[in-house]
Amino acid sequence: MQDLVIELRYDGSHLYEQIYQHIREEIRTGRLLCGEKLPSTRYLAAYLQVSRATVELAYEQLLSEGYIESVPYKGYYVAQVEELYRIDGSKEKHKPESALRTNTCAFDFSPNAIDMRVFPFETWRKITKNTLSQDKSETFSLGEPKGDLALRETIARYLHASRGVNCSAEQIIVGAGNDYLLTLLGYILGRDSVIAFENPTYPRAWKILGLLAKKLLTVSADENGISVDELKKTDANAVYVMPSHQYPRGVVMPIGRRMELLNWASHATDRYIIEDDYDSEFRYRGKPIPSLQASDQTGKVVYIGTVSKSIAPAIRVSYMVLPKQLLRRYEENYSFFSSTVSRIDQTILNEFIRDGAFERHLNRMRKLYKEKHEVLLEQLKDFQKDFVLSGENAGLHILLTDRQGRSEEELIAAAAGAGVRVYGMKGALVQPLSLEQEKAWKATILLGFGGLTQEEIVKGISFLRKAWGI
Amino acid sequence: MQDLVIELRYDGSHLYEQIYQHIREEIRTGRLLCGEKLPSTRYLAAYLQVSRATVELAYEQLLSEGYIESVPYKGYYVAQVEELYRIDGSKEKHKPESALRTNTCAFDFSPNAIDMRVFPFETWRKITKNTLSQDKSETFSLGEPKGDLALRETIARYLHASRGVNCSAEQIIVGAGNDYLLTLLGYILGRDSVIAFENPTYPRAWKILGLLAKKLLTVSADENGISVDELKKTDANAVYVMPSHQYPRGVVMPIGRRMELLNWASHATDRYIIEDDYDSEFRYRGKPIPSLQASDQTGKVVYIGTVSKSIAPAIRVSYMVLPKQLLRRYEENYSFFSSTVSRIDQTILNEFIRDGAFERHLNRMRKLYKEKHEVLLEQLKDFQKDFVLSGENAGLHILLTDRQGRSEEELIAAAAGAGVRVYGMKGALVQPLSLEQEKAWKATILLGFGGLTQEEIVKGISFLRKAWGI
Repeated sequence: MQDLVIELRYDGSHLYEQIYQHIREEIRTGRLLCGEKLPSTRYLAAYLQVSRATVELAYEQLLSEGYIESVPYKGYYVAQVEELYRIDGSKEKHKPESALRTNTCAFDFSPNAIDMRVFPFETWRKITKNTLSQDKSETFSLGEPKGDLALRETIARYLHASRGVNCSAEQIIVGAGNDYLLTLLGYILGRDSVIAFENPTYPRAWKILGLLAKKLLTVSADENGISVDELKKTDANAVYVMPSHQYPRGVVMPIGRRMELLNWASHATDRYIIEDDYDSEFRYRGKPIPSLQASDQTGKVVYIGTVSKSIAPAIRVSYMVLPKQLLRRYEENYSFFSSTVSRIDQTILNEFIRDGAFERHLNRMRKLYKEKHEVLLEQLKDFQKDFVLSGENAGLHILLTDRQGRSEEELIAAAAGAGVRVYGMKGALVQPLSLEQEKAWKATILLGFGGLTQEEIVKGISFLRKAWGI
Repeated sequence: MQDLVIELRYDGSHLYEQIYQHIREEIRTGRLLCGEKLPSTRYLAAYLQVSRATVELAYEQLLSEGYIESVPYKGYYVAQVEELYRIDGSKEKHKPESALRTNTCAFDFSPNAIDMRVFPFETWRKITKNTLSQDKSETFSLGEPKGDLALRETIARYLHASRGVNCSAEQIIVGAGNDYLLTLLGYILGRDSVIAFENPTYPRAWKILGLLAKKLLTVSADENGISVDELKKTDANAVYVMPSHQYPRGVVMPIGRRMELLNWASHATDRYIIEDDYDSEFRYRGKPIPSLQASDQTGKVVYIGTVSKSIAPAIRVSYMVLPKQLLRRYEENYSFFSSTVSRIDQTILNEFIRDGAFERHLNRMRKLYKEKHEVLLEQLKDFQKDFVLSGENAGLHILLTDRQGRSEEELIAAAAGAGVRVYGMKGALVQPLSLEQEKAWKATILLGFGGLTQEEIVKGISFLRKAWGI
C-alpha cells in the first residue's frame, strides 16, 4: 500500500489516467507483485483526495487491460505479469496518442487548454433535466441536417449581438466540432479549390482542407496579417484566416487589411474567405472588434465558430455561417448528411444560451482569463530584456520572441528540464521554411494560460526564469 | 378559434411542425387575418391533446418567422401579412428538405422509421442525472479521438456477444452517425480506391463514399446477394455490402456467398469488405446469423453499426471496427480528427449498455417489431395473388413485388391517392438501369412498419387493398 503514493499533477491531464499509469508502471517494473492486493477504491479515493469515480475509472482500465483482477467480495489483485507484457506490447504500438499525451511536466502552458473549474455544472444539469422531462419523442428523433431551427435562430441572434455577424438561421449549419464542419466545407468548396493559408497557421485546418482541396499554398504575413498583395499573385480561390486573433501569432487584423481582403474576394465570383473565429470571446484590451463577416457586403465570408472553447470541450457543437452562394451548393449537393449533433444536446445548448447562462458564463470566463492574463504579464516583466512580448490583447496565449539568438528547441528543452512544458511557434508551421526564412526566423515561444491557475502561472514562470537564466 | 381544428397525423412527422404548418397556411391563405388572436398555448394543447411544449414550439417557429406576434400579458396575434410573403418567399427557396418532409399521407410505411414509443426515457434520464453529478471536469473535457476507452471496451464486448464480431477496443472508432464514419472511412481508403456496390443499395453510402473514392461501380446481385463472379472481373478494391439484411432487397447473405466474398478479399493485400450491419438487431425467423466480420480470418472486413436505429435517432453514436491494416492507416494519418461525440453522451451510452438497459430495450423492441411484423404479414395474406412477398425474415421492412405488370410509380400514386405513403425500390437505385434491366425490372414496393402502430398497419393496409384493387 505504501507503493501507491501517487503524486497527482493538476495540469489538465486526467487524474484517472495518472493513477492508471502509476499503478501500471508499478506492476510492470515489479514494484507491485502478482497476487498483491490493491487498496479499495474507497480507501484510495480518500487517500488521494479525488472522487471515487476517478479511482474506479483507473481500476477499470487496469482491469480491462488485464493488469489487475477483481475477486468478488474481496477486492482487486495484481494479475499474472508474464502474460501481460505481450498484450501490452501489441497495444502500445497502436496507441501513439495516449503515449504522446503522457506528460511529465508539472506546468503545461498549452495554448489549447481552457479552464473548466468555473463551468456552471448546476445550470447545465438543471437544463438537461428539464429537457429530458419535456416532450419526449420529439427530442429523441433525428433533427434537421443543418441543426434544429430553434438553435440556429438563437445562434444567429447571439452572433449578431456579440460578433456583428449578419446572417439568417438558414445560413447556419451546426456540426459536431470544427473538424467536422471543415470537412463539410471542403466538400462544398469542391475538389478544384486552391486554398491559401498563412504560415504558421492552425495546422489542423490545413490538414483537413488539404484532404479535399486540389491544392493548398501559403502566403506570407506581416504585422497586420496575411499579405493580400502576395495572395493576389496566387491562383487561390479561398483563403483561411483568423482575423480576431491569428493562431499562433496573435495578430488582430486591422480594418484596412480586412477591406483589402474583402476586395480581393469580390473580384471573382468563386472567391471566398474562411474566417475561423476560434477564441474571439476573449479580449482584454481595447474595444471589441467585430468579425470580418460583419464587414462583408457581397457574400464572400464563411464564418466558423465553436462553443467547445467557450463552454466545454465535451460539448461538441460548432457552427458555420455560409454565404448564400455556398449555401445553395450545400442545399443542392450535401444536405443529405445527417446532423452530427444529438437533438438533446442541441436543445440543452439552446436553452443554455437563451436562458442567459451562456452570457453569464462568458463574462465569468473573461474575467477569470483577464486576471490570469494580468498575472502572466506581471510575471513576465523581467523577461523583456531577453524576449519581445506580443499577442497580448486577446485570446488564451501570449508570445515570447527571443532576442538572444537561441533556438526554439533549446528553449523548450531547457523549460522541460525545469518541469515546464512550453510550445514553439514552429509547431504551427504547415510548410517547411526556405533557407532564407529559416535564417530570418526568430525563436518564439507560445505561453497558453487558460488551463493553469494563477498560482501555477506564478510558479511555472519562476521555474522558466531559472531555466532560461533570467 | 374554430379555424384551428387541426387534424394531427401520427405518422412519425413532428406534431409541432404539423401545427406550425397548419397555422402558417391559415395565415397565408387569409383564413386567419392580421390582428386576429390565437388561442393560448395552454388552451390549444388541451384542445389538441398534445403537450404544451409542442404547441409552444410551433408558436415559437411562427414567431421567429414573423407570422405571429406576441403581446405581453395578452397573447399571440397574427402579424401584418403583406410583409410576410416576401420574407417567406426567400426562405422557402432554401428549404427543400422541410418542404419534402411535408407529408399529406395519413399512413407512412417508411422503411426508415422506428418506434420511439417504448424508449426507456426514465432510465435514460436517471443515467444522465448520475453522469452529470459525477466527477465533473473529466466528463466535460475533450475525449480521445476514437472515443472513450470505456465505451469502446463495452461496444467490443457487446459486438462479440451479439454479433460474433472479433475485435479489441483499439480497433473501434466511435463517431456521430454512419455518415460521419463513412466520410472517415473514405479518407482511410484513400482517393485511389474503387468501390463496388449492389444496385439498388443504400444510396447515402454510395453518395458519401463517392465524394472521396476514385470510382464507384455497381455489380449485379442474385437471391444470395452480390455476385462475386462479377465482382472479380472489376478493378474494385473494396465492396460495400449488408450481409445481415440487404437494403432494400432484404436478402440475408448465406454462408457460401460470404466465404466467396472473403476469399475475393484475401486475394490482394489492399482489398476490403465494408459490412454495414444497420438493422441486424431485428430478426424474427430462424436463428441469428453472425456478422460477416465474425468469419473474417485475414483482417479484411470493416464493420459499421449504429445505435441511432436501435436506441433513438437523436443519439448520434455509430461505431466502426477497422481491420489492423486500416487501423494503422487511421492512426498514422487521420487520428488528428477530434471525436464528434460528446463525452457526456458517451458516458451515458456506456452506462446504458453496461447496466443491461440496452439489452432490455432491444428485447422489448424486438418483441414489439415482431408483433407488428406478424400483423403486417397477416394483413398481406390476400396480396399474394397480385404480389410476391419477400425480405420477411429480418429488419424493419418487407417487400411486395408486383405480378401484374404495373409500374412502381402507378402503385405509389394509387396508394398516395388513398392516403398511404409507400416507397418504391427504384428509389434505392444508384445508377440508371440499362434498357435490358429496365425491361426485366419488376415493380417492388417497400413497406416499413417500424414507425406505425398495429392499428395503423391494419388501417393502412386496408386502404392499400382498395387503392390497388385487391
